[in-house]
Amino acid sequence: MNRILVVGSVALDTVTTPFGKCSDVLGGSATYFSVSASHFSPVEVVAVVGSDFPSRHIKFLKSKKINLNGLKTIKGKTFRWEGEYSWDFGNPKTIATHLNVFSDFDPEVPREYRASKYVFLANIDPRLQKKVLNQMVNPRIVACDTMNYWIENKRNDLIRLLKEVDIFFVNESEAKELTGEVGLVAAARAMLSFGPKKVIIKKGEHGSLLFSSDSIFSTPAFLLETIFDPTGAGDTFAGGVMGYLASSGSLSEKALRKAIVYGSVMATFAVRDFSLRRLGAVKKPDIMKKFSEFKQLTQF
Amino acid sequence: MNRILVVGSVALDTVTTPFGKCSDVLGGSATYFSVSASHFSPVEVVAVVGSDFPSRHIKFLKSKKINLNGLKTIKGKTFRWEGEYSWDFGNPKTIATHLNVFSDFDPEVPREYRASKYVFLANIDPRLQKKVLNQMVNPRIVACDTMNYWIENKRNDLIRLLKEVDIFFVNESEAKELTGEVGLVAAARAMLSFGPKKVIIKKGEHGSLLFSSDSIFSTPAFLLETIFDPTGAGDTFAGGVMGYLASSGSLSEKALRKAIVYGSVMATFAVRDFSLRRLGAVKKPDIMKKFSEFKQLTQF
Repeated sequence: MNRILVVGSVALDTVTTPFGKCSDVLGGSATYFSVSASHFSPVEVVAVVGSDFPSRHIKFLKSKKINLNGLKTIKGKTFRWEGEYSWDFGNPKTIATHLNVFSDFDPEVPREYRASKYVFLANIDPRLQKKVLNQMVNPRIVACDTMNYWIENKRNDLIRLLKEVDIFFVNESEAKELTGEVGLVAAARAMLSFGPKKVIIKKGEHGSLLFSSDSIFSTPAFLLETIFDPTGAGDTFAGGVMGYLASSGSLSEKALRKAIVYGSVMATFAVRDFSLRRLGAVKKPDIMKKFSEFKQLTQF
Repeated sequence: MNRILVVGSVALDTVTTPFGKCSDVLGGSATYFSVSASHFSPVEVVAVVGSDFPSRHIKFLKSKKINLNGLKTIKGKTFRWEGEYSWDFGNPKTIATHLNVFSDFDPEVPREYRASKYVFLANIDPRLQKKVLNQMVNPRIVACDTMNYWIENKRNDLIRLLKEVDIFFVNESEAKELTGEVGLVAAARAMLSFGPKKVIIKKGEHGSLLFSSDSIFSTPAFLLETIFDPTGAGDTFAGGVMGYLASSGSLSEKALRKAIVYGSVMATFAVRDFSLRRLGAVKKPDIMKKFSEFKQLTQF
C-alpha cells in the first residue's frame, strides 16, 4: 500500500454562502485532502492545531484511518478562516484570516512518515513546502498546490520548489499570474518548463486540464444542480487524484486521466454541504457510482 | 442523402479583434452554418443579399455545393454587422448593425426545398423562423437558434416556435435569460418543457452540453492556442451538428454526441482566422484528424 503524506492546514472555517452560514466548522487544506484521499490510500498528516481544536474532529479523522501522529497540538488557537461566497460561487471574499498557531508552523515530518512514496504539499508558504520535502526520503511522486499570495510574495521560492515537483495543481488565475500568459496552453507550457512533469489546471465548474510534455487531457466538471459550499473543492480534488494514483501505483497517462476523474468525483461530494458533512459520509459505492455517471456524462 | 435547409443571414461583417481588423468580409449565420454543414450533407440556403454582394462570395458558396436557389438578391445594400472583441473573446461589442435589405426579409422557401427533412432556423425573428417552418412539408428534424434580443422582445413568438422544434441551440446567457434560472440544469429542464426534445447549451471556450429528458452529455471545447476571431463559431458548430445528423440519418444518443463533437471540431476552424478564411479551406481529412484529436483530448 502506497502511503501519502500531506502537509497543509487544519482549520476552523466560518463560511457564508447564499444558502446560509456556518461558524467554526472543520476545514483546512490538509483536512479536505486527507479525507478525500483516504478512500483510496492510507494518509499521513503533518499540520498544527491549537488547544481549542475540538476532539470530535480528531475522532472523525481517525475514523477515516488517517494517521495523525504528525498533527501537533500546541497552546493557542487553531487557524481560522472566514469567507463569503456570492451566487456565482467563484473565488470567495475573505472576511478574515487568523493564522493563530499556524503563524509559527514549522512542519516536522515524523520519522515513520519519511519513507512515504507520495507527497502532497498543500497550499502553504513554499519555503515550508520545501522544508517538508527535504525531510522525505526518496519520494516517488511529489505534488503541490499554491495560491496567488505566494506567487506574488514568494515567487522565487515557489519556482525553486517546482523544480522538484512532479505534479503541480494550480487554478486558472494562478496559472496566468505565475506565467504572465493569457492562454492556458501557453501558461501550461511555461509551467512545465519550471520542472513539473504534469500540470493540472483546475477550472472549477468548467472542469480541469492535465498537461504533460506530449499530451493534454480536458474534462468537464460534474454538472451540479446546486453547489452549496465550494470550500475545499480544490484540495478534495487533489486528494482524489493523489489517492487514486497511490492506490494504482501507476503513472501512466491512463492512470492519470482516471485519477483526475476520481478527483472530480470527490469534489462533487465536497461542495454538496458545508464543511465535510457530505464528503465525510461518503462510502466507496457512492464513489464508484459517481465515477460511472461521469463516464456516462462525457463519453461519446 | 438528407438535405438541410437553413434560413438566416448572409452578411458583410466588419470585425475588430486584438489581432487586427477586417472590413466588409463574408459573414452571416446562414453562411457559417452552410459552409460547415456542407462537409457532411447537401445544404440549401434561404436568405437575402443586396445588389452590392460580391459575386466572388456566391462563387465561393457554390464551390461548396451549397444550393443558393433560395438566396434572393434584391436592390439595395447587403446586411452589415460591425463588432469588436476584446482579449477575453466573450460576447463582442456591437458597433453597428445595418439591416439594409434584411429589414424587409420575407423568407420564401423555393418549392424544390420544401421536402427537405432537416431544417435549421438560424437566429432571426422567431416569427420569420415560424414562417419558414410553415412552408416545409413534414420535416424530420427542426433545429433553431436565437439571441437575447428575441428573448427580450419576441418572447411569446419564440416560445410558440419552440413547441415545434426538435433541437434548440442556445448559449448560457440566453438559457438563463429565457428561463430565469441561474443553474444550467434547471434552465435546460425548463427549456425542454417548452417543447424541444433536445437542448444544446453552448458555453464557448468551456464546451457544450446536450440535454435530453433522460440524459446529459457534457463536453469541453477544443483547447486553442489562439482564438483569432470567434465570429460565426456558434453557427459553424450548429452546422457541424446538423450536417453530421443529416448524414448519419440517426437520432440516437450516440449519433447526437458524435454530432456535437463534429460541431466543436468545425467551430475550431471557424475561429482560426477572420471570416471564413480557414473554415472555407477545410478538407474532410482535416475534420477527421481533429475529430480523433478530440477523442484523444477527452477520453479516459
